[in-house]
Amino acid sequence: MSVIEELMAALGNAVLTGDRITERYRSDASLSGRTLPLAVVRPGSVDEVAVALKICNAHGQCVVPQGGLTGLAGGANPRAGDIAVSLERLSGIEEVDATASSMTVLAGTPLEVAQRAAEDAGFLLPIDLGARGSCQIGGNLATNAGGIRVIRNGVARDNVLGLEAVLADGTVVSSMNKMIKNNTGYDLRQLFIGSEGTLGIITRAVLRLRPLPTGRLTALCALDSYSEVVTLLKRAQQELPGLGAYEAMWESYFRFNSEADGLRLFESCPAFAVIVEQDLQGHDAESERFEAFLGRALEDGVIGDALVAQSQKEAQAFWRIREGHALDRLPLLLNFDVSLAIGDIGRFADECGQALRAKFPEAHVSFFGHVGDSNLHIAFSDPGATEETIHAVDDIVYALVGTYRGSVSAEHGIGLLKRDFLHYSRSPAELELMRRIKSALDPNGILNPGKVLGSV
Amino acid sequence: MSVIEELMAALGNAVLTGDRITERYRSDASLSGRTLPLAVVRPGSVDEVAVALKICNAHGQCVVPQGGLTGLAGGANPRAGDIAVSLERLSGIEEVDATASSMTVLAGTPLEVAQRAAEDAGFLLPIDLGARGSCQIGGNLATNAGGIRVIRNGVARDNVLGLEAVLADGTVVSSMNKMIKNNTGYDLRQLFIGSEGTLGIITRAVLRLRPLPTGRLTALCALDSYSEVVTLLKRAQQELPGLGAYEAMWESYFRFNSEADGLRLFESCPAFAVIVEQDLQGHDAESERFEAFLGRALEDGVIGDALVAQSQKEAQAFWRIREGHALDRLPLLLNFDVSLAIGDIGRFADECGQALRAKFPEAHVSFFGHVGDSNLHIAFSDPGATEETIHAVDDIVYALVGTYRGSVSAEHGIGLLKRDFLHYSRSPAELELMRRIKSALDPNGILNPGKVLGSV
Ligand SMILES: Cc1cc2nc3c(=O)[nH]c(=O)nc-3n(C[C@H](O)[C@H](O)[C@H](O)COP(=O)(O)OP(=O)(O)OC[C@H]3O[C@@H](n4cnc5c(N)ncnc54)[C@H](O)[C@@H]3O)c2cc1C
Ligand SMILES: Cc1cc2nc3c(=O)[nH]c(=O)nc-3n(C[C@H](O)[C@H](O)[C@H](O)COP(=O)(O)OP(=O)(O)OC[C@H]3O[C@@H](n4cnc5c(N)ncnc54)[C@H](O)[C@@H]3O)c2cc1C
Repeated sequence: MSVIEELMAALGNAVLTGDRITERYRSDASLSGRTLPLAVVRPGSVDEVAVALKICNAHGQCVVPQGGLTGLAGGANPRAGDIAVSLERLSGIEEVDATASSMTVLAGTPLEVAQRAAEDAGFLLPIDLGARGSCQIGGNLATNAGGIRVIRNGVARDNVLGLEAVLADGTVVSSMNKMIKNNTGYDLRQLFIGSEGTLGIITRAVLRLRPLPTGRLTALCALDSYSEVVTLLKRAQQELPGLGAYEAMWESYFRFNSEADGLRLFESCPAFAVIVEQDLQGHDAESERFEAFLGRALEDGVIGDALVAQSQKEAQAFWRIREGHALDRLPLLLNFDVSLAIGDIGRFADECGQALRAKFPEAHVSFFGHVGDSNLHIAFSDPGATEETIHAVDDIVYALVGTYRGSVSAEHGIGLLKRDFLHYSRSPAELELMRRIKSALDPNGILNPGKVLGSV
Repeated sequence: MSVIEELMAALGNAVLTGDRITERYRSDASLSGRTLPLAVVRPGSVDEVAVALKICNAHGQCVVPQGGLTGLAGGANPRAGDIAVSLERLSGIEEVDATASSMTVLAGTPLEVAQRAAEDAGFLLPIDLGARGSCQIGGNLATNAGGIRVIRNGVARDNVLGLEAVLADGTVVSSMNKMIKNNTGYDLRQLFIGSEGTLGIITRAVLRLRPLPTGRLTALCALDSYSEVVTLLKRAQQELPGLGAYEAMWESYFRFNSEADGLRLFESCPAFAVIVEQDLQGHDAESERFEAFLGRALEDGVIGDALVAQSQKEAQAFWRIREGHALDRLPLLLNFDVSLAIGDIGRFADECGQALRAKFPEAHVSFFGHVGDSNLHIAFSDPGATEETIHAVDDIVYALVGTYRGSVSAEHGIGLLKRDFLHYSRSPAELELMRRIKSALDPNGILNPGKVLGSV
């Protein structure tokens, strides 16, 4: 029997072929995928995932795991001849354990569905990102997703208590632990988190929940220099126990996006604008303390001005500038997602901006980022851009990241699109060790080949 | 040349043989080691670690990494014929980066030395445990150490930004990252953390630092039931942003240790005593809020009584009871270190206590633990204990942990002493995957063989 015949015999209707393979399975949100998969398997249970992989492995059939397809690195794109395993039917909340502050979910559960279930039980699920409506918990863990709230509760990895995954050969490895501390041999969960579907298919997870904030206080501050951005960050980390977000916008970014929204929030456009947000826990005098914190920073000259949102609408206006939807209207927008030691970010942005503007004098170049997480985004758009422009910009940015010993991907992962730049952040010894791990877990190389490490 | 000759030719005085091998290299703090190593290599640089492992690997010579030898699982004990690689000379702080809130240290640095250097720079290094004067950063990471302050800042793993390790074949794998977010391929750091020297020798680390608390508030509360212990924990997590410790003592434990100290803190001995500690950050009205928190818990009947330490001396008296030094005077004391879902701990302790007391009516059996971290300790001592008693107690405790799907080691690791019980917490599929990882990284099986997984 062919692999497709065997899959159909074992899994029946869960296998889509021919016309039943819709456009959706072609690409993730990078829109870089050009090829439909040979077939799509949509398992409805962990056992079905195991059966599918066992059959594919026996045939040496390559497989691409697909979550919500919101990835930005092409990691879920099929190559010609790949079979997609889509987790979309493996969805649901299995348990919320209020005493353990944990929730158990199937990997195909959309993030937003899991967030709501946590809130209904009086908890915060601290994983959050713009794609929450479509991305899946399995995809979030496979990419070790970050987002805006990392400063308080860490990245996806930091919020996983237990994990279950299916190896290439169909073995189900279940580490569905609910404990905070567990030192019984190697921590196998870590292998699957952030490995972008190349070491196993994640099927279930136990996620850590946190107390639900009762509200939020949001301020927009104007600052003169990157060193003041760092000083304010340090003070906020020291003095605001519920610091929930710290988002910096360079002048280039703030000016473009506030003008696009028709907003003029400060007398003159500051060199840096920072959103400081504090999660509330229902204590007395939280807003007095927040304002006192800002007052001291003003007095000491760390900030030049500060606006405290008086309503949710005002807070949303600050966030709209930060989200920067106006950028989407620029032609061929490139959005970089790098990380650097916090002390280096200011100099890096200066150097990177100069290099890009020198080569592309007409281009839009702007900087923003989760500075507290050492994460910087760079937006680039040039009216006359071609394929070559993109390559040149990639080279300028990533080579500079390399000299700063930074990371070419803070959040989005390597997938297909950043594979050629991985060497700027990883040494030959690291890459070789990654390959050893890959062959140990997937000796036939069937799991998402060509992604992250290239052909092994 | 023999392996020893080759090591001496390459590393000279760094190699101890014969009489130069002192008693100290025989055992970790479990005092279970009976054998001196064949030789001790004391590398003074990362290169020397690499040279030593390369030579040993070429000879198929087994190696046991030794840190501060404070481990409690026999993980650093040599077997006959093993060569010990002691990290004691690879010590020193390389950098404190105040902007990145990070410090870079060599693996042999004693924890307390690193803690002081962090404090001198105005930061808290959140890894802390009783053995701080002797244990080393490398040992803390190799065992993924926990301790009393985990509830606030996590286990050792959660405080590592970057790591460097030497593989069995002498390859140096350096991932000395300072960033919070970095998604560039597999997270290799995680392989070495908690693997107890079986996958590589940790040589350097970048540790994450936190704001230094300006002080602490400590209360001792009396509670009637385990469900109230959980209720108070939840409230503390919700309402005390700087919750720094939450330590529960069962009546059996609290009575024994407070009587031994000649203290009578409550009218009658409560069913549970809990230390609640809040880290201060120099805000206004922190102690008023702490007392208000306790006041509400009293009013609502969650706690029956509460004592707030009025001085450091009083706080130390509460902690002395928790540290339970009086137990050390009991004959053949066994101290278990298990973890369970927080909601299960109360029932587990009841069942476990009944089973042990039924079989050993004369024994001291008491319970205490970091309940917020799902971690329970059990102290056992029987005046007439023999080797068989120890085996019987082990079996009772670990089999029960297995039925609760808990962990046979929350903190101390598996080493040699818990190897036979690993199967209670790990499935055959998990153990098989661990073995695959082990052979991929150490194909000749020279690194700490016999520990954690047994012979591979
Ligand atoms: C509007 C928008 C905002 C975003 N914001 C952020 C952000 O703030 N932070 C951030 O980190 N990312 C962000 N992203 C990127 C993306 O949403 C995340 O990477 C997300 O975690 C991907 O989840 P997914 O389910 O869509 O995965 P997919 O795109 O389907 O897959 C991503 C990768 O994971 C693999 N994979 C998926 N599911 C599994 C599984 N169950 N087991 C094993 N491998 C699997 C795939 O093979 C692929 O390599 C954003 C994307 C968009 C479109
Ligand atoms: C009084 C006391 C209190 C304690 N309290 C706690 C506690 O609260 N929480 C807790 O978790 N533990 C506790 N422990 C246990 C112990 O201190 C920890 O496990 C500690 O992390 C071990 O560090 P070490 O340097 O002494 O390691 P060692 O005992 O020397 O070695 C431990 C293991 O790690 C390996 N190893 C050591 N260094 C390296 C390296 N550089 N690279 C690779 N492998 C290495 C060894 O081979 C061994 O398997 C306590 C011990 C004592 C004596």
